[in-house]
Amino acid sequence: MKEKGLLIVLSGPSGVGKGTVRKALFEQENTQFEYSISITTRPPREGEVDGVDYFFKTREEFERLIKEGKLLEYAEYVGNYYGTPVDYVKETMDAGKDVVLEIEVQGAKQVREKFPDGLFIFLAPPSLEELKNRIVSRGTETEELIINRLEEAKKEIEMMDLYDYVVVNDQVELACERIKAIVKAEHCRRERVAKMYKKMLEGEK
Amino acid sequence: MKEKGLLIVLSGPSGVGKGTVRKALFEQENTQFEYSISITTRPPREGEVDGVDYFFKTREEFERLIKEGKLLEYAEYVGNYYGTPVDYVKETMDAGKDVVLEIEVQGAKQVREKFPDGLFIFLAPPSLEELKNRIVSRGTETEELIINRLEEAKKEIEMMDLYDYVVVNDQVELACERIKAIVKAEHCRRERVAKMYKKMLEGEK
Repeated sequence: MKEKGLLIVLSGPSGVGKGTVRKALFEQENTQFEYSISITTRPPREGEVDGVDYFFKTREEFERLIKEGKLLEYAEYVGNYYGTPVDYVKETMDAGKDVVLEIEVQGAKQVREKFPDGLFIFLAPPSLEELKNRIVSRGTETEELIINRLEEAKKEIEMMDLYDYVVVNDQVELACERIKAIVKAEHCRRERVAKMYKKMLEGEK
Repeated sequence: MKEKGLLIVLSGPSGVGKGTVRKALFEQENTQFEYSISITTRPPREGEVDGVDYFFKTREEFERLIKEGKLLEYAEYVGNYYGTPVDYVKETMDAGKDVVLEIEVQGAKQVREKFPDGLFIFLAPPSLEELKNRIVSRGTETEELIINRLEEAKKEIEMMDLYDYVVVNDQVELACERIKAIVKAEHCRRERVAKMYKKMLEGEK
């Protein structure tokens, strides 16, 4: 009757500050999440520790993991592979712990296919919110800046469709508070809670 | 492009402590909810203030409100009417504020029919959680107490089906924290947020 942990996918457009928010989330004392460390073929930078920052692997090792279906998602950036080990994620969830992935939008798509019940959080740039406020306040006047920004905004808004929640990263601390609230709320969802109680009743029949 | 407020319905079996949790929720400093004061035909008790604790009305006045469709929900208990004025709820939501109703399970059903998009929170007795723990820990042994409690538990669990969230009222403070997290999360739901951004784009076409 133990509750299974949640899979929390934190993603968003590049440059939005996913890494900063994720780090802040794990630096807080009362955080009860587990972080899924990524695997990469890029060489360690100074100060980076294997098994803490990344699991560092060779290309051959990484490609074997792909073939063996050991990766929940992976992508190649500027000649290096990055991926999420599936076993760790599954084991953590089975142990009743919530696990956080901080990944790119393309990776999030792959995870959604495999874990449709995951909790998908889109980190949105504050510039999107600023753009909205600007449009509201300026009236009918049109500026070049807004026009250029609108094209990018359109893409960002389309990206959101895959996600359950949108968290604006206006301030790292506020973004963390919102993410923690989302996770807490998710644990109170009636489907989850009622399922546990119903199991209890069935066990008693 | 102003976001509409949420309708938050706090309900649960009688005796679960809805009133206590609701009061604690509004005593906190940073609460941004509005509380919908109920209308009743029962006479004011000592210290109760009209327009603060309840709106006190005569039976004739109350029955006129029913006829005129001015009540979001109502019920009769031991000869007295209790109801929720619909205008206040609508106006508060339109002003972008979240409004909380603390009502009985029967009333919550009526509200769900009129506001299917409301945020329905079921406050569950800690005895349900205790029962679950007891069943898990005791193994196969059966006690009369558990059998009696199971019938009641079954009803409580069936009641949950109407709700979006279940909050166990083990400690008033913890229950309040969960409710606040649920409301915060709800404001980050992709459907709500993306809708606002899409409106922004449409306004620019």
